Amino acid sequence: MATINDNYLKLPGSYLFAEIARRVAAFKEANPEADIIRLGIGDVTQPLPPACIEAMHKAVDELANADTFRGYGPEQGYSFLTDAIIEHNYKARGIDIASDEIFISDGSKSDCGNIQEIFGTDNHVAITDPVYPVYLDTNVMAGRTGTLQEDGHFEGVTYLPCDASNDFAPALPKERVDMIYLCCPNNPTGTTLSRAELKKWVDYAHENESVILFDAAYVYEIEGAKDVAIEFRSFSKTAGFTGTRCGYTIIPKTVKGRAADGSLVEFNKLWNRRHTTKFNGTAYIVQRGAAAIYTEEGQKQVKETIAYYMENARIIREGLQAAGIKAYGGVNAPYIWLKTPDNMPSWDFFDKLLTEVHIVGTPGAGFGPCGEGYFRLTAFGNRENTVRAVERIKNQLHI
Amino acid sequence: MATINDNYLKLPGSYLFAEIARRVAAFKEANPEADIIRLGIGDVTQPLPPACIEAMHKAVDELANADTFRGYGPEQGYSFLTDAIIEHNYKARGIDIASDEIFISDGSKSDCGNIQEIFGTDNHVAITDPVYPVYLDTNVMAGRTGTLQEDGHFEGVTYLPCDASNDFAPALPKERVDMIYLCCPNNPTGTTLSRAELKKWVDYAHENESVILFDAAYVYEIEGAKDVAIEFRSFSKTAGFTGTRCGYTIIPKTVKGRAADGSLVEFNKLWNRRHTTKFNGTAYIVQRGAAAIYTEEGQKQVKETIAYYMENARIIREGLQAAGIKAYGGVNAPYIWLKTPDNMPSWDFFDKLLTEVHIVGTPGAGFGPCGEGYFRLTAFGNRENTVRAVERIKNQLHI
Repeated sequence: MATINDNYLKLPGSYLFAEIARRVAAFKEANPEADIIRLGIGDVTQPLPPACIEAMHKAVDELANADTFRGYGPEQGYSFLTDAIIEHNYKARGIDIASDEIFISDGSKSDCGNIQEIFGTDNHVAITDPVYPVYLDTNVMAGRTGTLQEDGHFEGVTYLPCDASNDFAPALPKERVDMIYLCCPNNPTGTTLSRAELKKWVDYAHENESVILFDAAYVYEIEGAKDVAIEFRSFSKTAGFTGTRCGYTIIPKTVKGRAADGSLVEFNKLWNRRHTTKFNGTAYIVQRGAAAIYTEEGQKQVKETIAYYMENARIIREGLQAAGIKAYGGVNAPYIWLKTPDNMPSWDFFDKLLTEVHIVGTPGAGFGPCGEGYFRLTAFGNRENTVRAVERIKNQLHI
Repeated sequence: MATINDNYLKLPGSYLFAEIARRVAAFKEANPEADIIRLGIGDVTQPLPPACIEAMHKAVDELANADTFRGYGPEQGYSFLTDAIIEHNYKARGIDIASDEIFISDGSKSDCGNIQEIFGTDNHVAITDPVYPVYLDTNVMAGRTGTLQEDGHFEGVTYLPCDASNDFAPALPKERVDMIYLCCPNNPTGTTLSRAELKKWVDYAHENESVILFDAAYVYEIEGAKDVAIEFRSFSKTAGFTGTRCGYTIIPKTVKGRAADGSLVEFNKLWNRRHTTKFNGTAYIVQRGAAAIYTEEGQKQVKETIAYYMENARIIREGLQAAGIKAYGGVNAPYIWLKTPDNMPSWDFFDKLLTEVHIVGTPGAGFGPCGEGYFRLTAFGNRENTVRAVERIKNQLHI
């Protein structure tokens, strides 16, 4: 009989956010009148920048006409988008990225999840704890881990604890690791790593011939990073593309891994083979929308949206502090990571927040054992709801 | 040092269509004046149906306004699209598909490529020869094959030869196989399998507890197919979505595989876990466009486009025959599969066609050793170019 990939059975039944959605739906069914405010899943609420809207309307019109119609595009993305990204995000910062070192995708989640396919299954993986679940789950599926232990950790994975005691900056591992997932600004803790902290990891990767899988921005500003790091970036949070889907991955040709025969192989080549074989490019309309972010108006509009969310973050952070709740992050990141009152288990706090004040957040334990006793709120709500949520926490939550 | 996935090194350097693009680009650079007609990659040329255009404009406008903005959608797709598909493509044919048995994606290529992840690596794979390269290449990457042999076959794979001698209908394999890729109407041969032929495969899968991975349409009309088949479908060719990207996969809950402990596991559950962990849904705009295909106008417009391409197919088929070239397919499928004159190697015929009459097709050998001596042309060009291409073949090609 056909067999299944048994590694899947090592995973808990449902993906974190699916479990949250399930609990919220159940609560809503039982309390149809409840006015629920969602600060959980990290979804944005502000509309797309007008420059993107205009560009997408234009792209839709192009598809309506045989003379301007676009079918299959390059799997790696159109040059009108890749050129704009390289110019604005890298060249302007003095970082040299070639046009065949960038791969446009339908979002960072896909790339962060798929990247491990081009690595051997014998690699030792390091992740922070707490962590964005995709890094871990996709390595479990690929068989790079053992089974889930009683302490909530998978056998064979190196966890790098991040909590208040180390200012959420992971220490270098004691054992050698090959694949290191770093996320900065961090999801879920909302904290950032300093240049010095990042340099420490780049140096570690050089010494140990490891690869850093870096989710976010600007790792290549650190000297030597281009030899050891793959970078993932997304338009989801900056430009509101969570439902429009566009991201990209940078794989410098200098990042290499060892083949079984001992030879060195560029990960860029392997990813290009994967990307062209299993993916057919991001929708033309979407790529046009993303490119519009790099116009003058687009840049201005994106900055306004970011400022809007950052003001939300300030409101949440200061509101929590006023309510006597210890809060981290939310300064250079849209996530606020709070310590649950009296060390309450984080799923209990999830239920408490939902039932008492009808606010949806994300339990820290969902991001890993070290997230237990913590809880994530996001700054992506609209202003009115954000203010109302903070008022409810300050005035109606029994803590 | 971090190791690579060595299975990638078993593959030839570039994906078939990337190699074609490379050769065409080189020719174009050397002959900038050449008026190249592309009947190679299977890309469509006709604009999107007006119903889709209208729906997508409306969707773009929704994203421009905070009140109607859409962020993350369900990873499995919006119900406005899944309901329409189930209603029109299944229920109307008496086939019962539940709403949690359908998964919207960014296209069939992704799904056909990713589906093998939920199977054990010990499964024995059967593919037709010639075949759409994605089925084979993704299994090579996953380690389900040995190395490439001198005869052009990968060790450990069961190839099902399809050529003129068996009317392009594969015979059942002599050895047991677990995963069977079938494509109907067939790409590249443009031929179809009769209900009786399909039934033979469904019965085989029942007897051998195999799973059929069926790329196209209507396998569930065959009795018993819902227990043994996963179906992939796409809007690319019917509605011109090659650059807009939308497809879907049907995994009935009755399709099961064996776990290491002997228990039976639904592939549906595993795919749901994969889809929610590694994918974040198809762009909202695109899903709205796809749903518009199922309106009355949308259906009418799609039928017109299909009729247009089918007329192209007839022109190519009859033109080739008039030129003394033996041609197959092109009746219920948009692909024409021709026998190269004097059994010329198919890459030689590719170069001959490109340099002599500036037409791009696809060499049969690119689809597998049994495709050697054959060549694929597609009916997706516009009418004028299709007619001109056929005239060039009839009047200017030296055969």
